[in-house]
Parts: sequence; C-alpha cells; structure tokens
Amino acid sequence: MKIAGKHYRTIWLAGDGWSVEVIDQTKLPFRFETVALKSAGEAAHAIRDMLVRGAPLIGATAAYGFAMALREDGSDESVEAAYELLVQTRPTAVNLKWALDQMAQAVKDIPVAERAAAAYARAAKICDDDVEICRRIGEEGLSIIRALSTGKGGGTVNILTHCNAGWLACVDWGTALAPIYMAHDAGLRVHVWVDETRPRNQGASLTAFELHAHGVPHTIIPDNAGGHLMQHGQVDMCIVGTDRTTATGDVANKIGTYLKALAAHDNGVPFYVALPHTTIDWSLEDGVAGIEIETRSAREVTHMTGQTGEGAIETVQISSPGSAALNYGFDVTPARLVTGLITERGTCPASRDGLLGLYPEKG
Amino acid sequence: MKIAGKHYRTIWLAGDGWSVEVIDQTKLPFRFETVALKSAGEAAHAIRDMLVRGAPLIGATAAYGFAMALREDGSDESVEAAYELLVQTRPTAVNLKWALDQMAQAVKDIPVAERAAAAYARAAKICDDDVEICRRIGEEGLSIIRALSTGKGGGTVNILTHCNAGWLACVDWGTALAPIYMAHDAGLRVHVWVDETRPRNQGASLTAFELHAHGVPHTIIPDNAGGHLMQHGQVDMCIVGTDRTTATGDVANKIGTYLKALAAHDNGVPFYVALPHTTIDWSLEDGVAGIEIETRSAREVTHMTGQTGEGAIETVQISSPGSAALNYGFDVTPARLVTGLITERGTCPASRDGLLGLYPEKG
Repeated sequence: MKIAGKHYRTIWLAGDGWSVEVIDQTKLPFRFETVALKSAGEAAHAIRDMLVRGAPLIGATAAYGFAMALREDGSDESVEAAYELLVQTRPTAVNLKWALDQMAQAVKDIPVAERAAAAYARAAKICDDDVEICRRIGEEGLSIIRALSTGKGGGTVNILTHCNAGWLACVDWGTALAPIYMAHDAGLRVHVWVDETRPRNQGASLTAFELHAHGVPHTIIPDNAGGHLMQHGQVDMCIVGTDRTTATGDVANKIGTYLKALAAHDNGVPFYVALPHTTIDWSLEDGVAGIEIETRSAREVTHMTGQTGEGAIETVQISSPGSAALNYGFDVTPARLVTGLITERGTCPASRDGLLGLYPEKG
Repeated sequence: MKIAGKHYRTIWLAGDGWSVEVIDQTKLPFRFETVALKSAGEAAHAIRDMLVRGAPLIGATAAYGFAMALREDGSDESVEAAYELLVQTRPTAVNLKWALDQMAQAVKDIPVAERAAAAYARAAKICDDDVEICRRIGEEGLSIIRALSTGKGGGTVNILTHCNAGWLACVDWGTALAPIYMAHDAGLRVHVWVDETRPRNQGASLTAFELHAHGVPHTIIPDNAGGHLMQHGQVDMCIVGTDRTTATGDVANKIGTYLKALAAHDNGVPFYVALPHTTIDWSLEDGVAGIEIETRSAREVTHMTGQTGEGAIETVQISSPGSAALNYGFDVTPARLVTGLITERGTCPASRDGLLGLYPEKG
C-alpha cells in the first residue's frame, strides 16, 4: 500500500541486509516514523509494546526477531531462548506461535553455521506468503461485496469494521480491509463505518489513517454506535479480522467484536471474519472456554494519548482519579453468530465442517 | 449525596432566593466547581452544553430556567418564549418537556404578577418529588440486589451499568445507581462494572466519581468489555437509566445500551432499567421507529479532554486527522431484551401490560 505516493510494506529488511525496519504504529496517525529492529529483544519489545500489531505482522516480526538471534548465535540454546523470548510477547495471537514454529522447523536439522541464512530465507517467505494470502482473501471478500452492491443496484455498500485488520496489521493488503480496498479499486461504491476500538483506538487511528490514505470513504463511530446503525439499516455487512479462530469457528478478536456480532445477528446483517489459515487453532474446540484472554495495562483505559491544538503529542487522564480500570484485550464471538469465514482458500461457514471443507488435510 | 463530607443536591436555589446553582459536570471528575444560572438563557446553555445532564436534572434545570424567565417577565409571550427556548435544548429527553408542561400548567390561569412565585414553587416541588421518586426506585432495586446477594450466599453481586444514571443525573440519589447505593449502605457486598461510555465518558468520569466518593467498590471498563464479562459469569445483573421509555417498554438510553442488553440476553443476565414515571412517553409504541435520536458534535468523538500529568486540563485529538466522525447520542433497546422496569411504584415487565399494571390511570 502507499503512503504519500510511496509503496510500503509494514516490515522490510534494512539496507544492511540483516536488521529490519517497521512502521512505529504507536506514533500513528499523527507521525509516520519507521524504527530499526536490530535484535530479537528489540523485536520482542516491538511486539509487546505494539509498535507492530495485528496477527500476521506480529508473526512476521517474530520471525525476523528469531532470525536476528540466530545471526548472533546459531546454537540450539540460542534457538530455544529466542523462541521462548518471542512466543511470550502476546499470549492470544496464535500465529505468533505458528511463525516461530515454522522458524524453528526451518533451522532444526541444519548445521549451526547455516542456520541464520535459512532463518532469514524462511522469514522472507513468511512475509511473501502473507501478502499473497491477503490478496486472495481480498478477492474472496470482493465477490461478497460485489453481490451486495448488485443487490443495492450499485448503491453504496456500508461496511462496519472493528479494530484494525488492514495492511498495517499485515505485511500488505490486510485481511478484513483487503476486500474493501479491492472493491474500492474495482469502482464499487463502498463506505466504511470505523469502530474507534477503545481502549487503544486502533480503528479511529489506524484504520481511519489507512482508509484516508487510500481514499476510501469512511466515518469513525464510537464502539457504542454500531447497534443503532444496524437497527436503522445503515450497515450492509460487518467484516472483522481475528487473532485466533478455533477448529469449530469461534472467533477471538479485539474486545467488543462479540457485541457487534450480536447486533448483526439481531438485525439480519451478515457478519464475516477474514482470516489467513495461520490464525486457525485446530487444537481448540470451544473458544469462550478455551482461549486465554490477556489483560493489558489499566492505563490504556484511564489515559489517552493524542495531539494538542499546537501539534504536541500529549497523554491525559480521562477517568476519575482513584478509580481502578480493567482492560481485557479480546473477546470471543461464538461461531453461531458468524455468517462466514473468508480465507485464502475461499469462504466457508463458521463450523468444523465448513473449515474442513477448505482445509481437508486437517481432518 | 455527599462530597468531601458536605451534602449536596445537584441543583439548589442560591442565597439571593431566585438564581440557582448547579455543579458544572463538564469539569468533573478533575474539578468540583459550581456555577450560578441567572436566566432562562443560562439554564438553556447549561442543558445544551451538558453542564447539567441526566433526564431528571435536565427537567429540574429547565423548570428553574422557566421560573427565572417569569421573574423577569410574567407575560404570556414570556411564558411561550421560555418554553420554546428550553424545550429545544435536548430533543431526546422526554421529561424535559414534561417538566416544562408542568411549569406552563402551574402559571397558566393565574395573574401575571403571581406567576413567578408560582413557578418557583412548582420548580421546587419538581425537585423534591424527584428526590422522593429516586429514593423509592432505590428501595425497589434494593430488593432485587438483595435477592441476588442471597442467591450467592452473601457473595459479591457484580452489577454492570452504562453511562451515568446516578445522583449527578438527578437531584439526589439517582435512578440506576440508587439501588446500588442503598445495597452498599445496607451492608450487601456489591461491585460495579462501570462502562466508560464513549464518546463523553460519563461512566469513567461521573459514575466512577460518584461511586468513589461514596465508597462503593467499582471498576471502569471500556464499553467493549461487557460482553466478555457476561460470557464469563462476571456480571450478575445490569441496571441502566433511560431518557425515554415507550408505552410498550422500549428504552432509549445512552448509545451502546442496546449492545449490553443483547449481551445480557445472550448470557441470561438480568437487564433492568430504572426510571421515574416522568420518563415514560405514553404516546409512543415502537421506540426504534419512533424515537428521534439526536446526533451531537463529531468533535466529541475525535477529541478527548482530560488532565495532564501536570494537572492541566487539555484537549487532544485522538483520531486520524482528515477522517470524519458521526456521533449518535442514544440508541433504543427493544422491550424484549429488558428483564424489568424499576419505577417508583414497583418493578414491572417491559410491556404495555406491565406498565399499565403500575400506572392504571394511563390505560
């Protein structure tokens, strides 16, 4: 995707050929800055402090962090230490573990001296594969939007999304936003309701930033507003990403997704989840019972960072001093509320049978 | 209720005997300041700019604004002008109109010279009646909380609330929070999940401020979190206020209430609405179709005001510059999602029959 006319991925090898650079997403939407990551520790920090976020980009960053560790020391001990360091940075994102498993597998049976090169090659392939997967998800979702557009006689298709599952969450394209970009580029009339996505406001900051940069019509709304819009026919479909999807189609995504799925179900609005296969946790059945939901700092709820009228970045407390806050990162939307899962292999019902129809090798 | 040991109502006659003072709620929770209102215009400003908010307090403020107008000029023209000025300040709050109709009725058939005194007397009665109504709502709701407490063997009853329907929204006690204050004062163990209530954060600022001042255990959560908490058995009941309830039990309340009611319904959590009879709009059947939902400034979504580390009050933009926002004030929760309506005459099902059982004179 482009920013100010220049094409970017969200992670790329630096000119030195071994360190990587990423966009510091904590500075968005007010500053566009890139940061160099020069070690596994810096990669872990970038994941934990959300300089990078989004399941695919987290996986890609972990992969390069792993490669950088092996460049310093390719021993079995180093492999193990890098894996442990990186896998613990975000407990909910299943393809963080997937990416690290891929990396560990790629270096397992080869000489220590060759491990770094193999790791860099594997990390690059993880990135390229992600771009291709997102492109295919986009084409799958495009056909759904095209059908809605046709059903409205070419009128504007209003799409609600929650959090940021755009290209900033991936290496390029995005998951939930890929179909929207493709629909817009194909000349369909689309408009996106952007949930602001408290407490970190990834929607109002990142998704809005992306859509604005690309020229897609959109409107930021408080997370509280989606139900009202759906009651009044102002939402034609919902599409969100996911951090983890169970083998039965339960979907873990940013906290509040479940509430939008309930409203969609109550109002007959189709609710889609876009996901790469790496996000599927085939070992899990019951998402509500089985997925550990991380809690994050209460300060994300009680304080807010933004830009003053003078252009300075300032953090203010927005809650009553003396009151505690609790900050769950995700919730789980039961499969029964999901209209379909949009994957790189096609769209399927949110069920075991649906997923196995696309991924028979997992049966 | 008390602040720093001193008893307050939210509106009271000043020492001059004719102007009124209110708490400037836009300054909470960081500053406790009172403001004198010396004319109908100042009262209208206080309502429109939300120095006062909450249906009962809006009505009380409008009543005193009306009285102040008649003190200046008791003519029919003045009565009509004051009514028009004040009734348009907030379109959704039905008991704004109710209070003004009461005031107009009180001065209609009496000499111009006596109208101001009659208006002040009526305004004072509106305030005293509201306090008594809230006290009765509190006692009604207390019995529900007591039953839940008994059911948990005296364990903590976790109650989720949305927006501020506490004493700051009323003259004293509050509606949704009155049962909680009474339960706490009665020695029951209660804990309140306080929805922050974007975009104006009335929960995180006002409700948390109230509960903290009173010593009631509570935790601020993002509006996105309630569904997750309910899925995991961490909410025993929901209780909210309302700005307008239809004759069939549909409930207009702060935007996002509908989403919490959906989650409560999906998880078998009882969902109660506390209301004075003045909030019931007997002329309306279908709340979703019939209640006009006001939109407010997009700046409430895109900007946030809070306190810096140095103690200054600062406003920052929190959304991506260049992206528009939309800000609906309320949504409507269909009666089918409401477990019961808690009124000053008792608790009833959210239905026409339920309401007529308590208010047979409306049949």
